[in-house]
Amino acid sequence: VIVVLTGGSGGATFVQGLAEVVPARELTLLVNTGDDLLWWGLHVSPDIDSITYALAGLLSRERGWGMEDESFRCLEMMQRYGAETWFQLGDRDLALHLTRTRMLAAGKTLSQATREITARLGIAATVLPATDDRVETIVSTAKGDLTFQEFFVRERWQVEVRGVRIEGAERARPAPGVLQAIAAAEAVVLAPSNPITSIGPILAVPGIREALRQTPARVVAVSPIVGGAAVSGPAGALMACQGLPVSAAGVAKAYRDFLNVLVMDTRDTGETAKVDALGVKAHCAATIMTSAEDKVALACAVLAAATTPDLASRRAAP
Amino acid sequence: VIVVLTGGSGGATFVQGLAEVVPARELTLLVNTGDDLLWWGLHVSPDIDSITYALAGLLSRERGWGMEDESFRCLEMMQRYGAETWFQLGDRDLALHLTRTRMLAAGKTLSQATREITARLGIAATVLPATDDRVETIVSTAKGDLTFQEFFVRERWQVEVRGVRIEGAERARPAPGVLQAIAAAEAVVLAPSNPITSIGPILAVPGIREALRQTPARVVAVSPIVGGAAVSGPAGALMACQGLPVSAAGVAKAYRDFLNVLVMDTRDTGETAKVDALGVKAHCAATIMTSAEDKVALACAVLAAATTPDLASRRAAP
Repeated sequence: VIVVLTGGSGGATFVQGLAEVVPARELTLLVNTGDDLLWWGLHVSPDIDSITYALAGLLSRERGWGMEDESFRCLEMMQRYGAETWFQLGDRDLALHLTRTRMLAAGKTLSQATREITARLGIAATVLPATDDRVETIVSTAKGDLTFQEFFVRERWQVEVRGVRIEGAERARPAPGVLQAIAAAEAVVLAPSNPITSIGPILAVPGIREALRQTPARVVAVSPIVGGAAVSGPAGALMACQGLPVSAAGVAKAYRDFLNVLVMDTRDTGETAKVDALGVKAHCAATIMTSAEDKVALACAVLAAATTPDLASRRAAP
Repeated sequence: VIVVLTGGSGGATFVQGLAEVVPARELTLLVNTGDDLLWWGLHVSPDIDSITYALAGLLSRERGWGMEDESFRCLEMMQRYGAETWFQLGDRDLALHLTRTRMLAAGKTLSQATREITARLGIAATVLPATDDRVETIVSTAKGDLTFQEFFVRERWQVEVRGVRIEGAERARPAPGVLQAIAAAEAVVLAPSNPITSIGPILAVPGIREALRQTPARVVAVSPIVGGAAVSGPAGALMACQGLPVSAAGVAKAYRDFLNVLVMDTRDTGETAKVDALGVKAHCAATIMTSAEDKVALACAVLAAATTPDLASRRAAP
C-alpha cells in the first residue's frame, strides 16, 4: 500500500494521476483537516472533499474544487437570506456536507463518515482524515487571525502573513489506522501540497511525524515549489514566514527529519546540492501537471523515486 | 388586521388570493407546525414554508409546494449517499431550511427565525407559527403510527386511518403574539385547510381555542369539504376517524364552539339547515380555486362574510 499525505488542490491533482497508475485498493490517503469549517451550519472538509471527488471522478476540472457539472442555485437563495457566500457550496456538493453533518451529529467520527461516503461513491482507496479531533489552521495576518479559508478564499491570500499555528493540534490524536498505515506502507508520498497549511496540520498531530521517522518505507515528497515560487497558492509566503527558503531545498528542510527523497522540478536541478546537503536525495522530474498525461508521468516518477534502490544514478544531470 | 389560521396546500392557495385583496401589513397568518420534521438534518416547516413562498410569490404553481423554477440536483446526490428521498427538498428551497436550522441551532425560536426569513423575502404580512414548542401530528394507521409527512407524502395517504393525536400539544404554549393577534383581530379566518391535521394542531395548543371563543372578532371558516369529499388530500378520512361527518356541516361541527360563519361551496347549499342548527351561519360561495380569479373571488366572499352584519340575507337560495 502506498500512503499519501495530501491537502489542497495540488494534492488532489496529484492523487488523480496516482490513482491512474496504482490500483485504488493499494492507496491510502492521509488528508489534512486543518481547513475544515462550519459553513451554513454544515461541516465542510475541503481537502477530504477534493480527494473524495478526485477519486470518484467527480472533481471539477475547471475549478479544481467542488464537483463537475455543478450549479449554485441554493447559494443564490442563501445570499437572499443574508448568508455569507464567499465560500461557495454547489447544489450537488451540498449533499456531501449534509450527509457528513448528519453523521457527525449522530455521533460518528469524521473517519467513519468519510469511510461511508467514499464507499457510497464506489471509491476503493482508503481516505483517512489525519485526525478525528478538531484542528484548525490559523493564519496570523496584518488583518488579524484568520482561519485558513478566510485567508485563502475570502482574502484570496492577498494579505501579509505573520505566522501560522495549528490550533488543537497538541491535543489531537491520529485517526484510527493512520499510524498503522504509515508503519506498514510500501512507500509514503507527500503530495505537492503546501508544506505549512496542507501537510503541516497532518504533521502537527502528535505521533504522525514520529511514525514517518520510524517507518521502514521510503518517504518521498514532491516539491510544490518550482523556480523559487509556489506552483499555485500561498505556499511561498507561508514558508517564508516560518523561516524556510522558498525553494525545493526549503521543502526538503521542512521534511528533513523523515524525508528520503525529494522529487523536484527539472528546472530546479541547481538546487540538488543543497537538498543533498540536508541528507535528502534529490530526484528531478517534470512536476507541473497541466494535462492528464502530466499527472500520470509525475505519478510514475514518484513511484520510481520510491522504489529505485540508488536514486543518485537517476538524478538529472546538472 | 385579519388573522388567518392556515396549513396545507389549500391554506397556501387561499392565502395567495387573500393577499391580493388585503394589504399585506393587515394580514397575520397563524400557521400549523404539526407537520414539521427533521429531514437530512434540517428543520423543515412545510406549512410555514408554503405560506412564506406563497406570500413572496415564489410558491410553485405546478406542484403547490416548494419553489417555482426549482431543481433537485442535491436530492439526486443525496440518493447516491443512501439518504431517503421520498420527501423532496429542491436546491433553492434548501436555502430556507439551512437558514432556519442555523437560526434554531443558534438559540432563536421558530417565530424569530420565521420573522427574519420573511423579512428577507420582503414579506410585509406577519407569519406566526402557532407555537414555538414542538408539536407533532401522529396518524395512527393500519401500518402503525406515522408522522404526518410519512402518512401524507411517503404513503400518499393510501393507508387506513385509525386516529390522530398531536404529540406535545398539552405542553405547548402559543407563540408570542398569537393570542394577542386573535384578541385584537378585525376578523379571524380559518383557511380551507384540513380541520384535523392542519387546523387541529393549532387549536390543540392550550389557549388558542379559548382565545377564538373569546375574541370580539367574527370568526369565519372556509369549508375544505365540497360535495361530501375533501377538495384535495385526506381530510375526509381524517374527519371520519374523529367521528365528524365528511360534509360542510362536519366542518361547522369541528369549529362550532367558536365559529360564527361557515363559507361553504354553493353545491352544498343543501347543508345550510344543518350548519344553522349548529349555531353557525352558512354563507355559500364558489370555493374551488382553480384560477387566480377564483382565489380572489373566494377571498372577497370571505371578507364579505366577515363584515356583513346579517349573513342570512346573503345566503344563496336553496
